[in-house]
Amino acid sequence: MSSQAPHPTLLIPGPIEFDDEVLQSMSHYAESHTGPGFVKTFGETLTMVRKLFQSTNPAAQPFVVAGSGTLGWDMVSSNLIEKGENALVLHTGYFGDSYAACLQTYGANVTQIKPAIGDRPSLAEVEKALKEKPYKLIAMTHTDTSTGVLNDIKSVTELVRRVSPQTLVTVDGVCSVGCEEIAFDAWDLDVVLTGSQKAIGAPPGLSISMWSPRAIETVKSRKTPPSSYYASVLNWLPVLQNYENFKPSYFATPATQLVHALHTSLSQITSRPMSERFAIHAQVSDRVKAAVAELGLTQLASKPENQAHGMTAMYLPEGLAPTDVLPGLLKRGVIFAAGLHKEIATKYIRFGHMGVSITDPKRKDVDNALAALKEALAEAKQAKGL
Amino acid sequence: MSSQAPHPTLLIPGPIEFDDEVLQSMSHYAESHTGPGFVKTFGETLTMVRKLFQSTNPAAQPFVVAGSGTLGWDMVSSNLIEKGENALVLHTGYFGDSYAACLQTYGANVTQIKPAIGDRPSLAEVEKALKEKPYKLIAMTHTDTSTGVLNDIKSVTELVRRVSPQTLVTVDGVCSVGCEEIAFDAWDLDVVLTGSQKAIGAPPGLSISMWSPRAIETVKSRKTPPSSYYASVLNWLPVLQNYENFKPSYFATPATQLVHALHTSLSQITSRPMSERFAIHAQVSDRVKAAVAELGLTQLASKPENQAHGMTAMYLPEGLAPTDVLPGLLKRGVIFAAGLHKEIATKYIRFGHMGVSITDPKRKDVDNALAALKEALAEAKQAKGL
Repeated sequence: MSSQAPHPTLLIPGPIEFDDEVLQSMSHYAESHTGPGFVKTFGETLTMVRKLFQSTNPAAQPFVVAGSGTLGWDMVSSNLIEKGENALVLHTGYFGDSYAACLQTYGANVTQIKPAIGDRPSLAEVEKALKEKPYKLIAMTHTDTSTGVLNDIKSVTELVRRVSPQTLVTVDGVCSVGCEEIAFDAWDLDVVLTGSQKAIGAPPGLSISMWSPRAIETVKSRKTPPSSYYASVLNWLPVLQNYENFKPSYFATPATQLVHALHTSLSQITSRPMSERFAIHAQVSDRVKAAVAELGLTQLASKPENQAHGMTAMYLPEGLAPTDVLPGLLKRGVIFAAGLHKEIATKYIRFGHMGVSITDPKRKDVDNALAALKEALAEAKQAKGL
Repeated sequence: MSSQAPHPTLLIPGPIEFDDEVLQSMSHYAESHTGPGFVKTFGETLTMVRKLFQSTNPAAQPFVVAGSGTLGWDMVSSNLIEKGENALVLHTGYFGDSYAACLQTYGANVTQIKPAIGDRPSLAEVEKALKEKPYKLIAMTHTDTSTGVLNDIKSVTELVRRVSPQTLVTVDGVCSVGCEEIAFDAWDLDVVLTGSQKAIGAPPGLSISMWSPRAIETVKSRKTPPSSYYASVLNWLPVLQNYENFKPSYFATPATQLVHALHTSLSQITSRPMSERFAIHAQVSDRVKAAVAELGLTQLASKPENQAHGMTAMYLPEGLAPTDVLPGLLKRGVIFAAGLHKEIATKYIRFGHMGVSITDPKRKDVDNALAALKEALAEAKQAKGL
């Protein structure tokens, strides 16, 4: 049982429920950000980020910077883009548009491939686009939190390496890192960025990313300096390398208490094979998706291979809005999220199934949520005379 | 007595010791960043930031963004500077150079006034510079953490309004907000930025700033869009205004647990008149500075009016380095910081006296630190045969 005060179970696609130990590790007494205690904690955390990404290449570089997941887009855009360079965005929802807006802020000339809602760009479409002009980078959301659509980042990267090998592959893994399979080195990815608060299960406030040697070299060989100061890879790189070697270093003060939480969370995650973690998320996701289908609901993600394993976005029955169903869920102790994709926000709800709610066998979060969903839907239909 | 595990007292110029209640408030159970509970907490926090800055002008705008204090420089630079505009930096230590580097990253043409170490630019020098060319903004560190030198931000702002009224006055208050007097409206400041981890006493990881209507209007009337995405005032403004009106809104996920800690800390701070808080920090600072003088040590800050009230940077006796003295302090349960100003880093140490170590009458942190300093110095001198 949790030592936390009684509360409804947070099952939105992030932030997610906290493990007690992760939450309590933030109560560590104050430390100097350059003292030996914290330097060790931060150094070990960076090394565990490598394991999280299944990366063993010492020339790849993990980053942990105080900020929201969004800051990762600024890191990609301000370090990898020079004014006027081309970026190709594979749109699968709300976060594709935002990632594109961030790239444009730093001078990118953005092309988006935008399929119908619930679909993802096909490999043929991506190949066609890559052959039309040289792209400095490709940007895709692994799981788009607004739709639950999964991009096939492995196949896209293979395609890029075949068709346009110099193009950098950057992945927004905010809603996937820690629950979807990612083999950073083996798949030859260039940047995968995430936040601390989703499948990693730490509190929000840390921007976490993994950078390939190719990406780091691209930053080092820029013709112009990086176009951000706080998000500059060159400002952080020596500092994070020092921390990982247990040497104090300073660029900006790390979020010490959040790093403690991340250390605990990553210690738990990396104590088991990552493959096991991905498998259990996939199993539970299959169960959720079967239950949703049994309730007669359709997912936004149109095909099994497009469907994320850490969340499920589902259309409500005709005539029902999120405001008809979410209060009934809350009454039963469960919090889902309303729609986020602007065009259809009032037509669907989102169920996040990541982290401790999946991996802790003592919790019954998913069973409770599915039972609550069934009841809340029936209640809402009855109230509306449907 | 603190409920925290036994530990040496952290008396560096930030991060500082935690109040138990502040530390424990991070253990709040997981909440949706757009749910009513967190929306209320965040909205109240923003309103308390106004009080922290003694601001009652509803058109002034508080910002609380996940990130280090350093991110505040990016907010100033990317929102207020357009390429090629002039910025005047009043250098009082390490952070003047860094603030200048950030401004340059976003296209500013920077002029620095650099006095001798321990001094601050005189009003006459600032007036002369302001008359030489039009400056879009002036940038100064209120207390430079590397030297303990205090800029007279009130007098500088009066001067700017008289000589160059269109110039925006921006202040790095990372080491001053919460311990030095700041009257945001009355002094007609434009931006004061800070971090959560110094005199405010919350954990590191939040960039906090206050913006005047003049500064906000400057951003809104830019010829080019802000040159950062994550640090864009235009991206955050509607979201923070909504939160303060208790309406959910989204740009990037706030650091929910840190916001809880900040809420608790600001509730404590604003429950008493700010003048009382400034007075007690000044009293304790006077006591520290008298004790340091009695030990025969000289401060970096050359004159009483240049000396900050939240920290003291002191030269060690000839022949002693920080590594000779800091271990002796640690042995006595006290952590001070080594020097940070590159040219003289091995010649001095820094003592932070801010927050709960000053305001909690049950703690004897300053007395203990002064006693430990006396003993550690004597021990180090003896070991060196001085």
